[in-house]
Amino acid sequence: MKFLENGTVTSPKGFKAAGVIASVKPSNTTKRDIMMIASDVPCTTAAVFTKNLVKSAAVLVTKKHIENGVAQAVIANSGNANTCNADGIEKAERMAELAAENLGISADDVIVASTGVIGQVMPIEPFEKAVPEIAKLMSENGGSDACEAIMTTDTVKKESAVELTLDGKTVTIGAIAKGSGMIHINMGTMLSFVTTDAAISAEMLQSALREAVEVSYNMVSVDGDTSTNDTLAILANGKAGNEEITTRNADYAAFTEALTALCKKMAKKLAGDGEGATKLIVCSVKGAKTNSDAKGAAKAVICSSLVKAAIFGADANWGRVLCAIGYSGCNVDVEKVDVSFCSKAGEILVCKDGAGVDFSEELAKQILLENEITIAVDLNDGDGQAEAYGCDLTYDYVRINGDYRT
Amino acid sequence: MKFLENGTVTSPKGFKAAGVIASVKPSNTTKRDIMMIASDVPCTTAAVFTKNLVKSAAVLVTKKHIENGVAQAVIANSGNANTCNADGIEKAERMAELAAENLGISADDVIVASTGVIGQVMPIEPFEKAVPEIAKLMSENGGSDACEAIMTTDTVKKESAVELTLDGKTVTIGAIAKGSGMIHINMGTMLSFVTTDAAISAEMLQSALREAVEVSYNMVSVDGDTSTNDTLAILANGKAGNEEITTRNADYAAFTEALTALCKKMAKKLAGDGEGATKLIVCSVKGAKTNSDAKGAAKAVICSSLVKAAIFGADANWGRVLCAIGYSGCNVDVEKVDVSFCSKAGEILVCKDGAGVDFSEELAKQILLENEITIAVDLNDGDGQAEAYGCDLTYDYVRINGDYRT
Repeated sequence: MKFLENGTVTSPKGFKAAGVIASVKPSNTTKRDIMMIASDVPCTTAAVFTKNLVKSAAVLVTKKHIENGVAQAVIANSGNANTCNADGIEKAERMAELAAENLGISADDVIVASTGVIGQVMPIEPFEKAVPEIAKLMSENGGSDACEAIMTTDTVKKESAVELTLDGKTVTIGAIAKGSGMIHINMGTMLSFVTTDAAISAEMLQSALREAVEVSYNMVSVDGDTSTNDTLAILANGKAGNEEITTRNADYAAFTEALTALCKKMAKKLAGDGEGATKLIVCSVKGAKTNSDAKGAAKAVICSSLVKAAIFGADANWGRVLCAIGYSGCNVDVEKVDVSFCSKAGEILVCKDGAGVDFSEELAKQILLENEITIAVDLNDGDGQAEAYGCDLTYDYVRINGDYRT
Repeated sequence: MKFLENGTVTSPKGFKAAGVIASVKPSNTTKRDIMMIASDVPCTTAAVFTKNLVKSAAVLVTKKHIENGVAQAVIANSGNANTCNADGIEKAERMAELAAENLGISADDVIVASTGVIGQVMPIEPFEKAVPEIAKLMSENGGSDACEAIMTTDTVKKESAVELTLDGKTVTIGAIAKGSGMIHINMGTMLSFVTTDAAISAEMLQSALREAVEVSYNMVSVDGDTSTNDTLAILANGKAGNEEITTRNADYAAFTEALTALCKKMAKKLAGDGEGATKLIVCSVKGAKTNSDAKGAAKAVICSSLVKAAIFGADANWGRVLCAIGYSGCNVDVEKVDVSFCSKAGEILVCKDGAGVDFSEELAKQILLENEITIAVDLNDGDGQAEAYGCDLTYDYVRINGDYRT
């Protein structure tokens, strides 16, 4: 298994994509904001969605369209979430129709996604105008443009691809994602689309996706707010020519491992580019009674506003880490907990057996001034482990979110 | 029932208090940081504490001391939380001993509390030196000095008192509290001490306290972090001369009503002075299927970083309110939800039946520029209601917490 240089959603065989500037939000005249991804042939498909009771019309329409486990294209926009709108369903269905007409496929095989401001009526005109143009631009080099079109407050594009060998054939899995604010555990992303040329049944694809998401996107939090629009969809077109995966065999395991590695990489990209973030924070917990205890503790640490602010200030305030573990619900013996801070500048033990140890504040500062920080926690109480991904809390988070609509 | 002007913890009969500058944190030479409150006679007592598994030694010692339902004094400090310290219990017990020796009471009757940085060894010398001095200064006018001594990042003192008539006698209840950061639901305070001259059994006092806390301190969140040191203790010395309350009779109801009003007032003071806060946010939910659903929704709204940042920016981003209700776990029909923003500048409906309505952005801005904002939510689905208290998320929250230890 290896990651590809410049990998994206058009890296697997038989996928094309494009994105254009359509001014869904009238003030946007410089950034691509509507995109499509399509496979040459129908795909098996699987997806996971937000658990928020308030759902985008796009989520509701997509759920209906992929009920049969088949899809062939994605249409998505930024600039408007199409959520809490009386005419939302109508608009989302129209997006699917436009994609289908211009791609020559069935509207029922189109996945629809939107991201942006909640509760503003979405104009359909930009889609009527842009979709025919996008259909003409679709190419095997279009993944990156599609990725740009789903960005909102994201400062970098998040795309990647991984390659593995299944059944003697080269199989590729590619992904794009957007997500910067309103990001929390289950699902910790706004939108992500994954493509693969593997041959795999819809049932096995859903199973592999759930396994991968559990330890990647579901372990990311930026600000504790679960979006209304979260959608992670995967399309598999079988063009690699491997024997179709229909059971949990060795090929299933290899495919799931590669998909998991890809999703973890994307999850870290999301966390590190959280709104206003200057640092990626990884909380790595081991020695828990169970994996579930480890997950609970790791999530609480990366969700703590106080830990996030301390890391922003490069302040080795480990007491806040202990505090978060203490209220996480994790079954923990607080007198056994060890905590270290690590980065490429080094590693420093700051808490042993639940109490402070003498440490060099100078070295701690150096470690915390890096842009990727690991908070390593050993609960010394079993074999359970987990990792969660977050970011620091900064002035810019407040600036960005104090005036988002305008 | 009426609130007293300049009411505080020494307003009830038979209570004295004092606080001095003791430099528990060596850099502090200007603010009172150790205090005592004492009753002339032993009191019935009740308390609620943090649910964090990581607990201050002060919490552990206090729990032991009040097991018998009797206490006579409080000793508390700011500048050090005495949490995650190997010698914490020893130091907390020594605080109680010093208070007892100098007040001429039993150490088992002393409530101990600490607040400040977690995980730094607490120096005992400042207590050895200051407590005899504090004992000499104890007076019926000392409540406000005691209140100052528990402040950390608080910008204003939180104190109040309420008066009611029970059994023909005037009964007074006074309170002080500190709390600014690391504040979340259950308990939404760091420290609060309540005194009363009512005669009431320890069992009824605990019951009244639980009722009052449930709708006041337990409905406050500043940053979602549950502290390790939360302590709310009440002392009742019987000096008012009313017939002792030993059952849930009319006097119990009147006492609980007054205690609840006092705790709500204090809870709002805490929320409005949250770290970095410029505004108090009240989320008032009605029309829920149950009170518990209303509570869940109200809490989610005031805990949402995105709602908090929008209110800071005076941005009427009601979609974030809907989003928070959607993930709150509240049983809600999202297509029935109405939302208004209210302040002394007016009231404006921004969402009706789960979808946006046309509204004047100018009026919305005026309303949100006030320093006390109510987000009024009607779920139109029953009689359940609740109120929760929070504050906006500001640049100053980040500044304060990016470098708190130093």
